[in-house]
Amino acid sequence: MKQNIYDIPEFFKGYKNLRDTQSGLNEVLEIPALKSLLPDLTGKRVLDLGCGFGWFCKYAVDQGAQHVIGVDISEKMLCDARKNYSDEKIEYVCSPIEDFIPESQSVDVVVSSLVLHYIEDFKSVIENVFRLLSQNGVFIFSIEHPMCTAMGGYSWHKDDNGNKLHWMVDNYKDEGERNTTWFIKDRIIYHRTIETLINTLIDCGFTITNLSEPEAPDEFVKLRPD
Amino acid sequence: MKQNIYDIPEFFKGYKNLRDTQSGLNEVLEIPALKSLLPDLTGKRVLDLGCGFGWFCKYAVDQGAQHVIGVDISEKMLCDARKNYSDEKIEYVCSPIEDFIPESQSVDVVVSSLVLHYIEDFKSVIENVFRLLSQNGVFIFSIEHPMCTAMGGYSWHKDDNGNKLHWMVDNYKDEGERNTTWFIKDRIIYHRTIETLINTLIDCGFTITNLSEPEAPDEFVKLRPD
Repeated sequence: MKQNIYDIPEFFKGYKNLRDTQSGLNEVLEIPALKSLLPDLTGKRVLDLGCGFGWFCKYAVDQGAQHVIGVDISEKMLCDARKNYSDEKIEYVCSPIEDFIPESQSVDVVVSSLVLHYIEDFKSVIENVFRLLSQNGVFIFSIEHPMCTAMGGYSWHKDDNGNKLHWMVDNYKDEGERNTTWFIKDRIIYHRTIETLINTLIDCGFTITNLSEPEAPDEFVKLRPD
Repeated sequence: MKQNIYDIPEFFKGYKNLRDTQSGLNEVLEIPALKSLLPDLTGKRVLDLGCGFGWFCKYAVDQGAQHVIGVDISEKMLCDARKNYSDEKIEYVCSPIEDFIPESQSVDVVVSSLVLHYIEDFKSVIENVFRLLSQNGVFIFSIEHPMCTAMGGYSWHKDDNGNKLHWMVDNYKDEGERNTTWFIKDRIIYHRTIETLINTLIDCGFTITNLSEPEAPDEFVKLRPD
């Protein structure tokens, strides 16, 4: 199943608002971590799998990338990307990331931000990324933490008054589909253990050079204690 | 602090009984996982950091190891090891693993089973292991899972009748000492995030080739549902 929830108007609206107000986890956790892990992009060929609104494609060009391909399944997201983050060095392609094969060219850096938990066949995407990377190429991706996907979403155990008691992690070893609610019902994500994530990367040929579990800064926790 | 709880009679007795009855996590989770990850030991020089009762030292000899050094802080554990698992190829050394430096020799395989969560300075042990490994040497260790050490022990949230509701993981990013109870009070372990474990290994020069989160087989879950 190749899921395209981003073209559902209700989801698109909610998600766009979240990103516009910069109050989501992307701005606070994920983008700073991504930036800290990026190699020098000068002259590099970059691929962004699940580029969404195109923010990173433009950022890569600003950092000196030679050519950037942004792939996304959602035409609505790409429409925004072409409007707000267009550049002669950026090529936007509407495709499920599982099916994307660049034409006879390799890339130096592949980035994928908070997308791979939507993908049912994780291994085939990782194999594909390894195949299309140049020698010494780099793959940086973020994914919802297995301690968050195990139960499929925000897993606060709360008391009767709604006060948080504990973060819950049940069914950790039971990998697979989770039906979640985020802007819409029936948002499907796939839970995988840390063992599966790490060993799949190694089995596909990658050398792991860093693992990051970023934390929200105090000022953001105050703003959004949830 | 170099903790030696294994020489406390109360702890020693409880732990020895657990291992003798083969009803602990070692037999069900850890030893099968360790065996599955071991390279061919024929002719290898092996070091067991925190060898305890010496089971693995003897196993390594049986698998063809040329020489095995078993290091443990507990004289009581080593006394049992020398009695039950002695062999001319095995050398038992009483020392905190943090201080152990083998005399001018390198080893091919280092094993450390469920010991490193007792160590305050994780990085210095990892640096030391890397230093004393031969080229293409292998380090296999197990450690209490960060989802278990975060709250310092069995973290079942139970209802008033003692029924399990959820596994709790709080304070995950707050690394450091946890005061736990297991056979004795004031058993100190150190919680570290997956990020810290993985990146420390990489920073010290290791290439990660496998990560395992073993699961208890169904028949054991039935026997010990806790």
